[in-house]
Amino acid sequence: MTADQTPQEKLLAMRASIDNFDAALIHILAERFRRTKEVGSLKAEHDLPPSDPVREQEQIARLRRLAEKSDLDPDFAEKFLEFVIREVIQHHKQARE
Amino acid sequence: MTADQTPQEKLLAMRASIDNFDAALIHILAERFRRTKEVGSLKAEHDLPPSDPVREQEQIARLRRLAEKSDLDPDFAEKFLEFVIREVIQHHKQARE
Repeated sequence: MTADQTPQEKLLAMRASIDNFDAALIHILAERFRRTKEVGSLKAEHDLPPSDPVREQEQIARLRRLAEKSDLDPDFAEKFLEFVIREVIQHHKQARE
Repeated sequence: MTADQTPQEKLLAMRASIDNFDAALIHILAERFRRTKEVGSLKAEHDLPPSDPVREQEQIARLRRLAEKSDLDPDFAEKFLEFVIREVIQHHKQARE
């Protein structure tokens, strides 16, 4: 962004960045779900328990710390992880059915 | 991962990848919110309309396409964007109050 840009030009430049971040988020989420699918298969194959509350608490605590350091609301980080984990559980259920 | 790993070792390796992806997601989300905060200030400063339904529909359509290409459920991509936008609107409201 430069000082001689109109507000509309500045807005377009900001939106271009947001679109790039969203594309990055989608691709990382896609890769994360590939990995949780592997975890689901491994757990089913070796009769490991499907959920692990201790692991989940550690994930929440870690993401809250990372969020604080990067000036993101830690409550949002926790809600975000819960949102993603809900989807993973949904995938595991669909895979079993 | 190698063939001679125990299931538990394989699980730990998969979880290490998931933790790396989560850290990446948190940092990109933090940066995305920095940008939407700038958008909020710019819109307030220049009396631009706070929401833009056409832009939002374009974002949804684009993310659904990106999700399909990367083998991610497009419905999840749409839900994810809605989840993030809800948070942005919440930020904008708090900023105005």
